[in-house]
Amino acid sequence: MNNQCGTSPIVGFRFTLSPMTSDFVSVIKGALKETNLQNVWRHTDDVSTVIRGRSEHVFDVAKAVLSHATKTGEHVSMSGTFSVGCPGDTAGDNLLDVTTDPVNGPVSTQYVSSQFALYPLGDAKYMDIIYEEIAFAKERGVFNDSMHYASGIHGDIEPVFSFYEATFDRVRAKTSHVVMTVTFSVNSPSHEGRNDA
Amino acid sequence: MNNQCGTSPIVGFRFTLSPMTSDFVSVIKGALKETNLQNVWRHTDDVSTVIRGRSEHVFDVAKAVLSHATKTGEHVSMSGTFSVGCPGDTAGDNLLDVTTDPVNGPVSTQYVSSQFALYPLGDAKYMDIIYEEIAFAKERGVFNDSMHYASGIHGDIEPVFSFYEATFDRVRAKTSHVVMTVTFSVNSPSHEGRNDA
Repeated sequence: MNNQCGTSPIVGFRFTLSPMTSDFVSVIKGALKETNLQNVWRHTDDVSTVIRGRSEHVFDVAKAVLSHATKTGEHVSMSGTFSVGCPGDTAGDNLLDVTTDPVNGPVSTQYVSSQFALYPLGDAKYMDIIYEEIAFAKERGVFNDSMHYASGIHGDIEPVFSFYEATFDRVRAKTSHVVMTVTFSVNSPSHEGRNDA
Repeated sequence: MNNQCGTSPIVGFRFTLSPMTSDFVSVIKGALKETNLQNVWRHTDDVSTVIRGRSEHVFDVAKAVLSHATKTGEHVSMSGTFSVGCPGDTAGDNLLDVTTDPVNGPVSTQYVSSQFALYPLGDAKYMDIIYEEIAFAKERGVFNDSMHYASGIHGDIEPVFSFYEATFDRVRAKTSHVVMTVTFSVNSPSHEGRNDA
C-alpha cells in the first residue's frame, strides 16, 4: 500500500521538446503558442516545461504541443514524465474544476513512434500492473516492440495518445502514486518510411 | 520489500540524444563513434539507444556521449532512464566481468543543467529514500532547484555525473529495483549565460 502520497487527482506532465533543427527556438515557442493552454497550469524553465491539471486536459495539451511541433516535418523528440499522486502537490488545484471537454481536440494524422515505462510507486505488486498494461497495448493495436526498460508504442498520434491516457487512468485506479515515462519520436529518418501502425 | 525483481547487478541507461541542429544525424553518430563503447552492451532503435554493463562503465559512457555531442557548441538535450534490478535482465551479463577502470575517463569542462527523479520500486519507504538523495545533492553542491516531479542538478559535467553515479549507487544499496530519470540540457540559450555551478 502506498501511504505516503497525497490524494489530489491533479495530473502533471514534465517534458522536454527537442526539435532537431537549428530553428528549434521558433518551433518550441510556436508549438506552445498555437496550443490552447487555458485548462492547465504551466511553467517552463531551462530544461523542461511542466503542465498540470485534470488528466484529460493534460493529455489534450501534450498531444497538441507534439502535433504543432511536428507538422512542419521537422524531426522532433519529446521526452517526459506523466505523474499523479506526488506528495505535496497542490499548485494548480483550482484547475481541477475545469470539467469542460478538451479544448484542443483531435489533431492531424501523424505517425508517432514512442517508448514508455510505467512505475506504480509503493506497491509491491507493481510488476503485475505493468504486465497488464503491456497486454492492454497489444489489444489496442499500438504495441510495437519489447525492449530493455521500456515498451514500444507506435501508430497514428490519436490512437497512441488515446492509449497513453487510458493506460495511465487504468493504473491510477489501482495505485495512488503513478509515474509514466514516455519518449516520442516523430519525422525521424530512422522510422524507415513507416507512416502508419 | 521488493520481491519480484532480479538480483543481477547489471545497470542500464536508455536515452534519447537530441541535438537541436539540422545536422543532428552527424552529431549523434559522431558522439557514439568517438565514445569507447567496449565495456557496454549497446542497441540503438528509432527512438533511443540503450547501454548496459557495470555501473561505472555505463556512467562513463553516458558522460562521454554527452560530452562529444556538446563540444561543438550545439544545443543538445539527452533524456534517459538509468535502471537496475529489472526482472529478467540477463543480456549483456558477460560485461559484468569487466572490472577495469572506465575507458573514457574525464571529459572537458562543460556547464550542464539537468533534472532528475528517483523511483525506488516496490519499497513503501521510497519517499524517505528520495528525500535523502536530495539532501545529498545539496551536500555535493550540485543542487539547483526544487520543482514538480523533479529536482534540478547543475554544474560542470564531471561533478554532475559524479553525483548521479553516487546517488544511484547509494539507492541501489537500499532497494533492489531502482529507476532514475535524467534530462540533461547543454548549450541552451535558456541557461542565461551561466557556465559554472
